[in-house]
Amino acid sequence: MLTPDNGALTGNLHRTKTSPESLALAIDILRQKFGERLQTSAAVREQHGNTLQWVANEPPDAVVFAASHEEVSEIVRVCMEHRVPMIPFGTGSSLEGHVNAPFGGISIDTSQMNAILAVNVEDLDCVVQPGVTRKQLNEHLRDFGVYFPIDPGADASLGGMVATRASGTNAVRYGTMLENVRALKVITPGGLEFVTARRAKKSSAGYDLTRLFVGSEGTLGVVTEITLKLQGIPEAVASGICPFPSVKAACDAVILAIQTGLGVSRIELLDALQVKACNAYSRLTLPETPMLFVEFQGTEAGVAELSDRFAEIAAESGGGPYEWATKTEDRNRLWQARHDAYWAAMALRPGCKCISTDVCVPISRLADCLEETQADLAATGLTGPIVGHVGDGNFHVLLVIDMTSDDEVASGKAFYHRLVERALSMGGTCTGEHGVGQGKRAFLQEELGADALEVMRAIKEAIDPLNIMNPGKITG
Amino acid sequence: MLTPDNGALTGNLHRTKTSPESLALAIDILRQKFGERLQTSAAVREQHGNTLQWVANEPPDAVVFAASHEEVSEIVRVCMEHRVPMIPFGTGSSLEGHVNAPFGGISIDTSQMNAILAVNVEDLDCVVQPGVTRKQLNEHLRDFGVYFPIDPGADASLGGMVATRASGTNAVRYGTMLENVRALKVITPGGLEFVTARRAKKSSAGYDLTRLFVGSEGTLGVVTEITLKLQGIPEAVASGICPFPSVKAACDAVILAIQTGLGVSRIELLDALQVKACNAYSRLTLPETPMLFVEFQGTEAGVAELSDRFAEIAAESGGGPYEWATKTEDRNRLWQARHDAYWAAMALRPGCKCISTDVCVPISRLADCLEETQADLAATGLTGPIVGHVGDGNFHVLLVIDMTSDDEVASGKAFYHRLVERALSMGGTCTGEHGVGQGKRAFLQEELGADALEVMRAIKEAIDPLNIMNPGKITG
Repeated sequence: MLTPDNGALTGNLHRTKTSPESLALAIDILRQKFGERLQTSAAVREQHGNTLQWVANEPPDAVVFAASHEEVSEIVRVCMEHRVPMIPFGTGSSLEGHVNAPFGGISIDTSQMNAILAVNVEDLDCVVQPGVTRKQLNEHLRDFGVYFPIDPGADASLGGMVATRASGTNAVRYGTMLENVRALKVITPGGLEFVTARRAKKSSAGYDLTRLFVGSEGTLGVVTEITLKLQGIPEAVASGICPFPSVKAACDAVILAIQTGLGVSRIELLDALQVKACNAYSRLTLPETPMLFVEFQGTEAGVAELSDRFAEIAAESGGGPYEWATKTEDRNRLWQARHDAYWAAMALRPGCKCISTDVCVPISRLADCLEETQADLAATGLTGPIVGHVGDGNFHVLLVIDMTSDDEVASGKAFYHRLVERALSMGGTCTGEHGVGQGKRAFLQEELGADALEVMRAIKEAIDPLNIMNPGKITG
Repeated sequence: MLTPDNGALTGNLHRTKTSPESLALAIDILRQKFGERLQTSAAVREQHGNTLQWVANEPPDAVVFAASHEEVSEIVRVCMEHRVPMIPFGTGSSLEGHVNAPFGGISIDTSQMNAILAVNVEDLDCVVQPGVTRKQLNEHLRDFGVYFPIDPGADASLGGMVATRASGTNAVRYGTMLENVRALKVITPGGLEFVTARRAKKSSAGYDLTRLFVGSEGTLGVVTEITLKLQGIPEAVASGICPFPSVKAACDAVILAIQTGLGVSRIELLDALQVKACNAYSRLTLPETPMLFVEFQGTEAGVAELSDRFAEIAAESGGGPYEWATKTEDRNRLWQARHDAYWAAMALRPGCKCISTDVCVPISRLADCLEETQADLAATGLTGPIVGHVGDGNFHVLLVIDMTSDDEVASGKAFYHRLVERALSMGGTCTGEHGVGQGKRAFLQEELGADALEVMRAIKEAIDPLNIMNPGKITG
């Protein structure tokens, strides 16, 4: 049985560990250039091999803090010359071992590349360096009356969000990073440097290099500049919560809301156990039953009309009452609780690790997938509250695992695999938004088949013939 | 000076004409299999080398009408074995010589692959074969209460629309084919066959093969199945027209409408000459001044509110009055006139050819680009009415050229090149929606630079090492 792991895949691209001499030489050259901005202490290295999955921490040999496109270019040149792996790093909030260094090498930390280079309000776009985080960007944008809607929960770097094709709560309305990146400036491991597209809103100029790099998890090059699509800050926002007797009833309401084109900007499911966890962690008193958190944006009159319609839809599906949070502070408190779901889950069993699944299915199959998954959890006795971006058919089981128990870890991995199989059998994907990294390479092949993987490997080899750009991720 | 032409680029991928013996053998083998569905008559071949640009007709050696994925697979296998170029063909409505056969070969006509395989209303998606046209699809979908919004004007095949990353009047609200294709089934020239993604609404599972094939103009493989995103039919639609004293004033209104988030579903500019042409061709009596054609979708109350707001915005920008077309037949008549702009332009000078430009710039620069372009037209004396998808910054000068006059053709090409240079200098692209084909290969390199082109060539070579899949397009 295939399980999520650091381990090598059959058919991997060839990669052996760089010779110690080459590595030492490359580090020496970079130390001369970067001085204190090159670090080799165990603490810094381990922090840069951060992972929140089953996979173990695999620290890089050194971390370089780059401050500009030119510096990244210099690092790439040195690594290329000495055949040393490079791992681009943002904030380390990715989940699938993306920043691990299974073959050693240099972590390129972009957190100091955090300048916002341009905000073009008339064009609803901006240009940022990859180390800018989404919260930093939105604070900067507030005075311009615009914002960047993609919100994966963590205060991730925008470079990292590009790399994993991140999405989150607003994707149901605004799409994912796929739809919200206009252009990228990149440096490939072969030393090519270019901008993937002009700043125009659309283009048919050749292969879509922008989308090739969005979701490539740092395996095809380092992103040094990002042009992002922005949205106007809506005149009015209305949020509310709505209890349902079952996840099936909640899913029915979601499907109906989307079909009738309500244009909901967020629609999130918490199952009964997750509501219980949030009540305890965030001091709420919600009824402990499946619950939808909903948000509308528009004009004052518009959001009122939409909220009323949603209340009707919820009632038709057997749910309700739908309660508006009219005060901003109540609204913020609810969404904060939603965002803290991960910490709330972990608090259910202090001392345990929280490992998130990430399947996404067509929403017509969502209720089936959720119910079978809950039954599976009940049968195994695992603790796994569920939160879901249900408007997209994407949900996370937040498995709370005692990592010191081999039995529980094995049981958790087996559950994880069954969940992926279930999603695939329903036309779904093993990862809606977290990416493949090390943890889901075996699943990727199951999902798309050997021929699709062969094309991915051919692309990887064409752009990174030495296999030095974040090796051991996605295709091997 | 680089001009749009069939001619070879420096740095082309290597391609020599297939040997006559290999070609004859491949055609023989395919004739045995396909009988009457393989055609070699001059008329059929020329129709399959159709082009609406400067580039000359270059017919394929034979046309095969494939009826299934398996048949395409068989054709690809034979062509691969005998090193014969293949050119995928939909309806031939592309503009940039995409279906020409500069190295000869076999045109794979997919018009008989026109089955609608599934409509999933709950998931707002459908699965179609590539020969289905957008009008055929929307007629089929009507009873389901959903529709496919992308409308490039022509009744193009959906396979062709995938290939050119088509868009059109609704893109300002719904995006282009980039945002509206969920998955593709493809066959590569190396004989690999796979589905690029599952039917889930989003995924982070590896490199974005879907977007790699969207806009690849048939150079990476043949698409045999397409999963498309659908939209619910809106409760209410409101359209109107609004005159402006200048294209600048019209552009100001467009920018303001988009910034304030009116969610306009169409916003099209016709310049004074185009309005004059439409009046004559479509028997309208519009004031012959720059004009915006606008459409809103939503609830009855919603579209009324939006129309009022737009009227205010238009007035603020010096335009108006904004006139609603409340009756469906009036609305259809106006949009039909807009869709007939190409024929109306051609009717300005009977016997001439109409050649469309396709630049797209950030909308903050749109007025500058339009005004400089109108001045350029005035200075050259060329006839070129302008229509624009101005919400996206994309506009077409419909150059009406007497192709028998060498001077006029030369003047037209020089104008065309200046327009691309102007758009590029403003952060724009040489092609918003028509694609590169043969006609814009030189411009592509100017737009994205040698390094980006090198990456595109590396991808092409990785997937099509024999360069038999629609050779001579995009990268060479």
